[in-house]
Amino acid sequence: MKRRPTRISVNRIARKGGVMMPGERVVPEEVPVAFSYGGTSHAVMMATPGDLEDFAVGFSLTEGIIQDASQISAIEIIDEERGIDVQVTLIDDVADALRARRRSMAGPVGCGLCGIESIEQAVRQIPDVSSADLKLTHGDIVRAVSLLNDAQPLHRETRAVHGAGFYVRGKDLLAAREDVGRHNALDKLCGAIIRIGTSGSSGAVVVTSRLSVEMVQKAAILGSPVLIAISAPTALAIRTAEQAGMTLVALVRGDDFEIFTHPHRILPESIADVA
Amino acid sequence: MKRRPTRISVNRIARKGGVMMPGERVVPEEVPVAFSYGGTSHAVMMATPGDLEDFAVGFSLTEGIIQDASQISAIEIIDEERGIDVQVTLIDDVADALRARRRSMAGPVGCGLCGIESIEQAVRQIPDVSSADLKLTHGDIVRAVSLLNDAQPLHRETRAVHGAGFYVRGKDLLAAREDVGRHNALDKLCGAIIRIGTSGSSGAVVVTSRLSVEMVQKAAILGSPVLIAISAPTALAIRTAEQAGMTLVALVRGDDFEIFTHPHRILPESIADVA
Repeated sequence: MKRRPTRISVNRIARKGGVMMPGERVVPEEVPVAFSYGGTSHAVMMATPGDLEDFAVGFSLTEGIIQDASQISAIEIIDEERGIDVQVTLIDDVADALRARRRSMAGPVGCGLCGIESIEQAVRQIPDVSSADLKLTHGDIVRAVSLLNDAQPLHRETRAVHGAGFYVRGKDLLAAREDVGRHNALDKLCGAIIRIGTSGSSGAVVVTSRLSVEMVQKAAILGSPVLIAISAPTALAIRTAEQAGMTLVALVRGDDFEIFTHPHRILPESIADVA
Repeated sequence: MKRRPTRISVNRIARKGGVMMPGERVVPEEVPVAFSYGGTSHAVMMATPGDLEDFAVGFSLTEGIIQDASQISAIEIIDEERGIDVQVTLIDDVADALRARRRSMAGPVGCGLCGIESIEQAVRQIPDVSSADLKLTHGDIVRAVSLLNDAQPLHRETRAVHGAGFYVRGKDLLAAREDVGRHNALDKLCGAIIRIGTSGSSGAVVVTSRLSVEMVQKAAILGSPVLIAISAPTALAIRTAEQAGMTLVALVRGDDFEIFTHPHRILPESIADVA
């Protein structure tokens, strides 16, 4: 199947220094991506049409449908004119569990949080990552953000997409993924990481976006004990990370940053090699 | 009822110029907000707990549940510990129509787009705004963005929320609303505008965020023919605006900006008073 481009050049008129000039700009594509399990439609996301297998695996993970990439037996990507249908086939046990779960969910509708129609579901329990003994230095934080900036080809062209990366001390970024939606970028990253079989507890998740609670939930489900963001966190993201034992580092600007929770995992450069 | 604060001061450790310093930062609150109609839960959003009546009206409008603020007979806001339940009571005809619509929607689940589980629903038909004869000058665009920047008290304190405003030539900003979620900020604005009884065709919607397709959909449902964004648009947002007859202005930086669709509504300063 021919894959859609993730970006496109459009005509536009630019006003610059008081002068109007016609020209072109590269903008990111955005396409409805529908996830189906066993032929039943589950959710539709507006997303950048790249890394869709990673997206399918990562979405299935962070939605709690799978715990492991091996629980998906096939992913078929069907490009319909108006959107992309991603057909996921689960192994039998997992497919049965999803069918049972769907039966117990009543009627429409979720929004912003997939399939959530009650407050209890929205503030669902997330895995505790306190036991993960990852340590990072100040230099690691600055380096992780800098590497993520360099690993965003789509953003470099469009200046309009979010990125998410997975940083392992001594191995740099194991993967980085991009999307017009920050949740999607993180889902794609989670999928990429579990597909290569790396434990989420071995590294830090790094994102370019703000930290809302869902970003903390997704990183915790991946098993990562450190979440680093270029932008600011919400109060609920901080409380959730505090409870989950996750270290939240945000507002990384050059060599500066702020630590909001569980600072014991972040060490000054000088004692890093001792740790 | 005592309303929750929209922001909170948290302790954090800041690294600045190589020195670690404990201190405080103000971060935005984020709370699950559940919308119920006639006692039936419809959707849950993670949102900033301010302007919830505007949010309820605007969400009901952009979801296609109401066409007019008068179709809501009551809004009750119940603060439960884990989230906020917004109970909307519709007038009889509209409540009946929603019940019929809910019966026709099968099972779970929507995500990112409220209640959407098929690609057809995701790319729904939106109102055509080509006939709206609004004209704005280059100076109006710069002024609208500058006024929106000044109308964001929560962002000024937190540097972490989105804003949406409604600009009318000669009247400046009629309203501005903020939220951790850009869709929510726009829904709140739409609610504020129809509650004061102003026609959406009389002004431009101005947003601080990127322009994904849902932002175009919401502005079109409000009836506004001009959408101005500080950040960049997606390709689908541009195509949708093109089809709906909406003028899309984006990447407004100081006096510079770019026009992506229907530029006839944007006039140079000099001929503005003639138009």
